[in-house]
Amino acid sequence: MGDAGFTLDERLEKSSYLILRRGGIQIRHADDSRFPWVLLIPEQAQASELHDLDKELRRDIIDLATRLGKVMKEIFEADKVNVAAIGNLVPQLHVHVVARRQDDDAWPAPIWGHVEPEPMDESLREIRIEKL
Amino acid sequence: MGDAGFTLDERLEKSSYLILRRGGIQIRHADDSRFPWVLLIPEQAQASELHDLDKELRRDIIDLATRLGKVMKEIFEADKVNVAAIGNLVPQLHVHVVARRQDDDAWPAPIWGHVEPEPMDESLREIRIEKL
Repeated sequence: MGDAGFTLDERLEKSSYLILRRGGIQIRHADDSRFPWVLLIPEQAQASELHDLDKELRRDIIDLATRLGKVMKEIFEADKVNVAAIGNLVPQLHVHVVARRQDDDAWPAPIWGHVEPEPMDESLREIRIEKL
Repeated sequence: MGDAGFTLDERLEKSSYLILRRGGIQIRHADDSRFPWVLLIPEQAQASELHDLDKELRRDIIDLATRLGKVMKEIFEADKVNVAAIGNLVPQLHVHVVARRQDDDAWPAPIWGHVEPEPMDESLREIRIEKL
């Protein structure tokens, strides 16, 4: 499961809320009111790329991203799921799963690297996390 | 293998070059001189999301993206690999694998949705495809 040497990157911690931990993976919601936006973070020290994970954990995280994407598309009535491992600013491996709608604030552009996040208020945070 | 009803989206065809086809997946290079940038396209009609693929093909495409990312990071001396399934503009499922460098034209921003591509000339195209 989680790696004893793992510490969550401070920027990821400050910009997201833990939903749950499962099989060595943290499932978090980004603190942004504009999008249903989940982050999956394997609790592995030094992992920065998908190829840094062993095959089993990589499959687990992709299977989880896929299932979450399917569920998020349904419950948030989204038009498209965006899944990405980027990490140019925060190299600790994290996989984004975002439910996108044609009427959202960034469509059709990707949500990364464009504008500052807009933090969620408490009620929205509870609704999103409850739904997930 | 490939789905008999599959036709490559015209925008993907025009904006990339086929490197090879393998196990029902087209491996293409985006026609952009600025980045080593591969597209993986499962030859499945109607597939738009990762969850539209059956589990085996999804694993194949992710395993391939992972291996390609590792190799691309090495041969292009990259600082980070970006892997993403976005598809807001072209819904036909395609997985991006991009080798990013801190001195590239977009760093640290993602490459999608920012600027127009800069087509490769023939020699660069041959070099990139040969390397891969």
